Amino acid sequence: MPRSDGPATRVAGAELQAFMQRALARCEVDDASRNAVAQALVTASRMGTDSHGLRLLPHYVRAVQGGRINPRPAMRFTRRLPGTGSLDADDGFGHLAGYTAIEHAIAMADEIGIGAVAVGRSSHFGAAGCYALEAARRGYVGLSVCTADALVSLHHGQRPFHGTNPIAFAAPVPDQPPYLLDMATSSIPWNRVKQYAAIERELPLGVAADAEGELTVDAARAVSLLPLGGADFGFKGAGLAGMVEVLSATLTGMVHGFRMLPMSGDDMSTPRGVGHFFLVMRPDAFVERDVYDRGMLDYLADLRAQPALEGREVLAPGDREWRCQAQRDAEGIPLDSANVVAYAELAEELSIPALP
Amino acid sequence: MPRSDGPATRVAGAELQAFMQRALARCEVDDASRNAVAQALVTASRMGTDSHGLRLLPHYVRAVQGGRINPRPAMRFTRRLPGTGSLDADDGFGHLAGYTAIEHAIAMADEIGIGAVAVGRSSHFGAAGCYALEAARRGYVGLSVCTADALVSLHHGQRPFHGTNPIAFAAPVPDQPPYLLDMATSSIPWNRVKQYAAIERELPLGVAADAEGELTVDAARAVSLLPLGGADFGFKGAGLAGMVEVLSATLTGMVHGFRMLPMSGDDMSTPRGVGHFFLVMRPDAFVERDVYDRGMLDYLADLRAQPALEGREVLAPGDREWRCQAQRDAEGIPLDSANVVAYAELAEELSIPALP
Repeated sequence: MPRSDGPATRVAGAELQAFMQRALARCEVDDASRNAVAQALVTASRMGTDSHGLRLLPHYVRAVQGGRINPRPAMRFTRRLPGTGSLDADDGFGHLAGYTAIEHAIAMADEIGIGAVAVGRSSHFGAAGCYALEAARRGYVGLSVCTADALVSLHHGQRPFHGTNPIAFAAPVPDQPPYLLDMATSSIPWNRVKQYAAIERELPLGVAADAEGELTVDAARAVSLLPLGGADFGFKGAGLAGMVEVLSATLTGMVHGFRMLPMSGDDMSTPRGVGHFFLVMRPDAFVERDVYDRGMLDYLADLRAQPALEGREVLAPGDREWRCQAQRDAEGIPLDSANVVAYAELAEELSIPALP
Repeated sequence: MPRSDGPATRVAGAELQAFMQRALARCEVDDASRNAVAQALVTASRMGTDSHGLRLLPHYVRAVQGGRINPRPAMRFTRRLPGTGSLDADDGFGHLAGYTAIEHAIAMADEIGIGAVAVGRSSHFGAAGCYALEAARRGYVGLSVCTADALVSLHHGQRPFHGTNPIAFAAPVPDQPPYLLDMATSSIPWNRVKQYAAIERELPLGVAADAEGELTVDAARAVSLLPLGGADFGFKGAGLAGMVEVLSATLTGMVHGFRMLPMSGDDMSTPRGVGHFFLVMRPDAFVERDVYDRGMLDYLADLRAQPALEGREVLAPGDREWRCQAQRDAEGIPLDSANVVAYAELAEELSIPALP
């Protein structure tokens, strides 16, 4: 995902979190929802996942003001069987739904080794990685997936069908930050197409298509993303996106991405009925914990010791994020000029103190 | 995966299965292992997954004759917690380990909604799809993953590190064959590099690298595959391969692919200690079954109705396989010339009747 660590306004994570809390409080968002949204957005921004970080706050404010998102949801968890359950998110914030579902999955995993929660009637939950990461931070293997509205064409398809349907997987590593994979099942996010269109920069070949479904490098002409694997091997990305649909839409009884109201659409009053799916496992439900720990350390040591191409680095999933987080914790989280304007407008509109 | 439906010797699935049974019986392979190997190989061959079908029998015969694979394993399942367990495959055939693990996972899912089994001390299990498919055929959502020896470089890496680490996911569809995704986390299988080298055909760009880790389209110079996503987005394929390592190697206490003895190596006497991981879920553990059923049908109907690029088709994962299976059930399973020779040699060596 794009990062913007150049010269920029920087703000401490705590200040950012406090601003988010104030803004959401002005919109009558309850405590639990405010905490969840602020935690997820600041987690993403600290890690450098700028597409899913602080940038989203103004959008969420509009969605909750318009009535699309319920500011005071009564989320209901039903443990249908000992290892599985469903969470009705009552059209509240997806971030609260995500952290709540992970709690229930962890509680089930504690008891029976594994727990899975399908979440329905939810909304955008930010970065999928936040919830898998929460599981890993507490010692569990976590998986988090989510459908999204249609932006990605099928392999050999002409038009957008799947969402960017992310897959996030995290696993604990002793004395190190977790293994953290958080990927869209398209090659790039839609956000990047918009950025490249704005600065008239060419896209790589094989990541986007025009209105006829033909490959294009012209971001201004792109109307859909290609699935991961591109023109030749996109059936793999599309198949992974379909797996996400089955888990997040079919197992939750929600509409699949193709039928879902667009996140960026004008209708800010109708709940979108987003579905998510979460899986949590205890490593020691399969093998002794010290064997697991040694295996993770050996694997990552071997991986990081691999020779890299000249001028390149070999990284484990998450390494880039943890490095960015350390830097941003020290120097502050950058806001690009668009975010500076949006946050100033938000402060004025909501009559709250601006970011320092 | 490559298919060879041109002019070829064809054989009925039942004849093929009987031949496999005879060959393995001659190697003192027990009933359960013979049945599992024959079922998995014929399933793959019927579906057109030729890289993981009948082609593998001569290899398995060598492996069991050499002592790498235990022909009469005493596999031991330990249900460590109500939803999770480990299977010690006693160095037997991975196919028996796979079907056995799926049975245990289904039994746990029946009781508590979900079941996961980590398999250790196993061997090559053929096509990962066979085991996810077995779950889906019986009404469950199934996931099957497996590590393999190092053939795929890391993103920006110079040398092979991960195996082709497949991910297979299957889900039942009412009155239709299952949704079936079975993909390597590289763009192409190593097998294809060897085929292209043999016929001096160029590889697509971005799927393979030479000894220095530089991209090459010359199959004869390729020493590693690139992860899915190629030179630009291979961090996604590599991250998925890593997820498979965590599930199949770390959670099973087995070595990861980089340290694993190569499948095609000369040492046919040392067990390879392959690990697999299987997950099974009941759809009605999350949502009413009729809601799940309608959701799957709606999703697949919308998907298959998408407009395709000119001269192309939009397919759901599995559609190509079920079409191939219908054709091969009617016309027979093709053996290319190399397979015809290998099967004739096997019959002679083992003193068993040749394929008709």
